[in-house]
Amino acid sequence: MASDAPPPLLDLTIDNITPNTNRINSQGDDARMKYLMTRLVTHLHDFARETRLSTEEWMTALNFLVACGQISSDEFILLSDILGLSLLVDSINHPKPPGATEGSVLGPFHTHDAPTLENGSKMAFDPKGDPIFCLCTVKDKEGNPIQGVKIDIWETDSTGHYDVQHAGRDEPSERCVMVSDAEGRFWFEGIKPVSYPIPHDGPVGKLLTKLNRHCWRPAHLHFMFGKEGWDNLITALYMRGDKYETTDAVFGVKQSLIVDYGTVDAEIAAKYGIKEGMTLLQHDFVLVTEEESAQLRDKNAVEALEKLGLRMKLVDHLPVPELD
Amino acid sequence: MASDAPPPLLDLTIDNITPNTNRINSQGDDARMKYLMTRLVTHLHDFARETRLSTEEWMTALNFLVACGQISSDEFILLSDILGLSLLVDSINHPKPPGATEGSVLGPFHTHDAPTLENGSKMAFDPKGDPIFCLCTVKDKEGNPIQGVKIDIWETDSTGHYDVQHAGRDEPSERCVMVSDAEGRFWFEGIKPVSYPIPHDGPVGKLLTKLNRHCWRPAHLHFMFGKEGWDNLITALYMRGDKYETTDAVFGVKQSLIVDYGTVDAEIAAKYGIKEGMTLLQHDFVLVTEEESAQLRDKNAVEALEKLGLRMKLVDHLPVPELD
Repeated sequence: MASDAPPPLLDLTIDNITPNTNRINSQGDDARMKYLMTRLVTHLHDFARETRLSTEEWMTALNFLVACGQISSDEFILLSDILGLSLLVDSINHPKPPGATEGSVLGPFHTHDAPTLENGSKMAFDPKGDPIFCLCTVKDKEGNPIQGVKIDIWETDSTGHYDVQHAGRDEPSERCVMVSDAEGRFWFEGIKPVSYPIPHDGPVGKLLTKLNRHCWRPAHLHFMFGKEGWDNLITALYMRGDKYETTDAVFGVKQSLIVDYGTVDAEIAAKYGIKEGMTLLQHDFVLVTEEESAQLRDKNAVEALEKLGLRMKLVDHLPVPELD
Repeated sequence: MASDAPPPLLDLTIDNITPNTNRINSQGDDARMKYLMTRLVTHLHDFARETRLSTEEWMTALNFLVACGQISSDEFILLSDILGLSLLVDSINHPKPPGATEGSVLGPFHTHDAPTLENGSKMAFDPKGDPIFCLCTVKDKEGNPIQGVKIDIWETDSTGHYDVQHAGRDEPSERCVMVSDAEGRFWFEGIKPVSYPIPHDGPVGKLLTKLNRHCWRPAHLHFMFGKEGWDNLITALYMRGDKYETTDAVFGVKQSLIVDYGTVDAEIAAKYGIKEGMTLLQHDFVLVTEEESAQLRDKNAVEALEKLGLRMKLVDHLPVPELD
């Protein structure tokens, strides 16, 4: 599409502001950017028109955004989480074929400074935490082990806080990176996850209160799997029976990710050099290849856009309008 | 609507996340808040679904919002301005019947510390500015003068900056409050407004660049009229022939607000004690009553919502769903 001269912008009204804004925003050459901006502005304006948004409500919304930006760089992730957007974006981008481990929300507490630990290491040092032994595998859909997968693992301490939420954190705790072995295994000692409130001292917490919603997440352990050629898997395991199992403030729980504790038996104890009778968390994760994930994402996109009656083509796997 | 128990939130997908988010957001008693949130979440999710928003694009958007919040508390107003939302919200909330002065965008540079000056005062002290004499009236639609209207007036200096944009501003300059006299008149000495770029050192400026848009506003003088019983009028006068007359970065220009300079003649010079031959800016503003504005707003809302096929009722002049 050639860049047209900008439209004359005069006498803009409730009824003509949207096409005019979209026209002046469409002078660039980036088709994807133009499509994103056009849909964003159209939805934003439709929202204001449908609700007859008052000046006071508009100002309240702007002040809310300012407060989010000022309290912490993570507040907008939290906002996205509690509005279901994070779950939605993850679902769009990491579709899972049957048999693959489902994804869950990343949340704002992943860091990039976790130490890479040997299999069998302890990754949680809170003395008040209940120790658990985690024994996991990572395989493909056909059951073949995947060696050399980098696995980020992170959880809260026994008080329900991630290390980064404590003032004066010197070094990472309750987080680590492990690498799967030739049998696709990785194992470590952690502590029993506990349910905890998401940060609620800021504008997002106030919004939840106004909506009569609680700010709790059920107990869970975060995992992120990465290896070249395999679709990045961000997920979590949720402990069955948690009080907040069906009301997670950030919509992350999936039935396939709810797990039960077991007990370390004599065989496992001997094999991994740990105490018999210890609480055991065992899980087998299943990854899909980057290629399969991309194909599935494209297929889902084409089907969804057709269903919406939109004439689109995919460029770099992302839809842009199909022009005549 | 009674508050229902929250829905069980499990196994949320691209297709069911929206109704579930809306249900858990609808546990409060504030019908307006519920309607606003439902429409907001629906539009946000529809946007992500239609565009198949990528994780990278989502993260770019969140980082953009963080940057807006961090640079200045006015950046979100600027964002609203350049996306046409400010113009739209003003148009919804301050509809003007034929004969009334049209509104324009407030912008981020109005302050509450401007001095109230006697009619005839000088309100701009930039020695490099070209002096102008402004002679205005404020009347009702029938041509009757309105006395005692408080009028906020603000403009940039000759370099295109408002006083608050200069580091080390001690006191207001190029801004004042005047009060209309028994004949509805107010008059003052200002300087010729110049076109100027909106602040573009932050994320909003970067966005404009990415969109191939310039960041300029045509030369204008801001006015805000307030008196109990009269609909608050936020408007501006634009100088005819400005280079940016039809491409205002914030969509504020209306033909009825474009004005020509005149020249102070002998009669005006004698009457107001100023120099003959000085540049003159003359304008008659027309206010509508709060009641007429509210009635027109309600009428427009009912018509627009019917046209959209939405079954709504107005509560405190704002739409909420009409329930069975």
